[in-house]
Amino acid sequence: MTMTNHPTIEDIRQAQERIKPYIRHTPLLRAEKIEKAVGCQVYLKPETLQITGAFKIRGALNKSLSLSREEIANGMIATSSGNHAQGLAYAARLLGVKAILVVPVTTPKIKIENTEALGAEVILFDGDTAARWRKVYEIAEKNKYAVVHAFEDPMVMAGQGTIGCEILDDLNDVDTVIIPMGGGGLISGIATAIKETKPSVRVVGAEPSLTPKYFHSRINKERTSLPLKNTIADGLRISVPGQNPYPIIEKYVDEIILVDDEHIIAGMRVLAKDAKLIAEPAASIGIGALLAGSVKVTPQEKVCVVLSGGNWDLSDLAEIYK
Amino acid sequence: MTMTNHPTIEDIRQAQERIKPYIRHTPLLRAEKIEKAVGCQVYLKPETLQITGAFKIRGALNKSLSLSREEIANGMIATSSGNHAQGLAYAARLLGVKAILVVPVTTPKIKIENTEALGAEVILFDGDTAARWRKVYEIAEKNKYAVVHAFEDPMVMAGQGTIGCEILDDLNDVDTVIIPMGGGGLISGIATAIKETKPSVRVVGAEPSLTPKYFHSRINKERTSLPLKNTIADGLRISVPGQNPYPIIEKYVDEIILVDDEHIIAGMRVLAKDAKLIAEPAASIGIGALLAGSVKVTPQEKVCVVLSGGNWDLSDLAEIYK
Repeated sequence: MTMTNHPTIEDIRQAQERIKPYIRHTPLLRAEKIEKAVGCQVYLKPETLQITGAFKIRGALNKSLSLSREEIANGMIATSSGNHAQGLAYAARLLGVKAILVVPVTTPKIKIENTEALGAEVILFDGDTAARWRKVYEIAEKNKYAVVHAFEDPMVMAGQGTIGCEILDDLNDVDTVIIPMGGGGLISGIATAIKETKPSVRVVGAEPSLTPKYFHSRINKERTSLPLKNTIADGLRISVPGQNPYPIIEKYVDEIILVDDEHIIAGMRVLAKDAKLIAEPAASIGIGALLAGSVKVTPQEKVCVVLSGGNWDLSDLAEIYK
Repeated sequence: MTMTNHPTIEDIRQAQERIKPYIRHTPLLRAEKIEKAVGCQVYLKPETLQITGAFKIRGALNKSLSLSREEIANGMIATSSGNHAQGLAYAARLLGVKAILVVPVTTPKIKIENTEALGAEVILFDGDTAARWRKVYEIAEKNKYAVVHAFEDPMVMAGQGTIGCEILDDLNDVDTVIIPMGGGGLISGIATAIKETKPSVRVVGAEPSLTPKYFHSRINKERTSLPLKNTIADGLRISVPGQNPYPIIEKYVDEIILVDDEHIIAGMRVLAKDAKLIAEPAASIGIGALLAGSVKVTPQEKVCVVLSGGNWDLSDLAEIYK
């Protein structure tokens, strides 16, 4: 493990070995039916089919497995709008320790239920991200819990980066990879894996128009905090770029594009209709971007779209499919 | 190729080689979240992720590729409630010949649209299965079309049987396989592949309570025709067992169980919620059977459930998920 705040390709390859026995190497699915509408070859990387229904288990497990037994003996704690909560809860159960999750009151019910079903303790908290993190560190200090940050931790980023290795392993001549941007842990990991292996691959980050934190930070050449607006993509609803992911993203992400909620919803529908996959809004942003024409592509271009997760209440899905 | 009406394991292994370049070896997905509710280990074989969204392309392609250029030069014809139509349309386009599909007027819109999108000619027909087949043979004779039967043709059965080989290749110690029963092409192919490779594996067929043709034929010890009732599982709505599949099923299928529409719908919901997969009603019958407790299982038993397809109108999915 490197001692810096950013993972290297070696960290990511090590993570791949470390978490391999516990996670699923998700398939890479060509989505022929979507191609005509978007004008390029489309390959889906459905982390919706990952254990716990989202990619987060990769990072949570890589971090947990790299800590000593003493460090995690009392338990592990984080705050999360849901998918990281499930990932950490799963990792904790696997290691036989306690998981404590401080969760925003606005979190979709399915994500809370799934977290509790994995045996974790859920603390509902009404307050902004900064306040939630203060709460986490306060509880952690009092109880000697290990904090597992959803995107600032380089070992977590390295875990998420294993998706990039799998994409290159399964589709070595991929031209472009589109990745959702929330806190930045997913994209910084995947971008590192890809650019440090094959720099010619184009890495595109997709952000909701309603929370364009990385987009504006790039323009402003510094981390820029924005008022939180209610994009449907709850998993990407974050007001400021992650401190550690930010420089990685500036170095390795070629383009940052914005997608409005209407196209995110269109992406959800197309994934259901043409790929038979249930993707939550955050996961549908890449297909939404292609449908909106926001990413310049050519017909022979091989575009891989990362579907980050599929945890969304059935009744809310019904509203979108109807 | 054998000259009899039933395929052998050799036919199926040959089919596997023949269609390999064109189809998808679908993943085998462990569905941990479903296991607690059903009391056994659950592995899903999601043909919902197959090209054209259903298994039918396997049989259609195996048959088409085994015919000579002259035999298919004028075109290929069949009748189908939808998924076989898309499979044949896809195969025909691949081989550069015409596909003609005689389709019941009650077919879900998505299946008709998808068939036409593949370049096939769709003829809507109002009449029962026997009348539709008469129409098919009449058109075929007049135009010298090759008829590709959805389940009577041994080469079609052999194509569907490749699913059985993939299951054994990916999970050699599988204990039980649950397969939907419509005309019988899918289950006769898979049962042959499994029983002629590893006879100890239990093969279970699942049929809607509303169209229990194979169930009653087994009791009556002869093919028994039943009045058609409107199960939601349109893909399994057939009044009489297939002539060629019937003896294979009597030989190789250990149990035939009935599932009511309520549990089929529960299966659709569970697959969406806990596996993030969109399955049409016919494909959800196996999970429905487990939820209903209709298949006796033990906690350590490895049960593979074949999800036959995912083609269902989004608005109808919304009704079921709401």
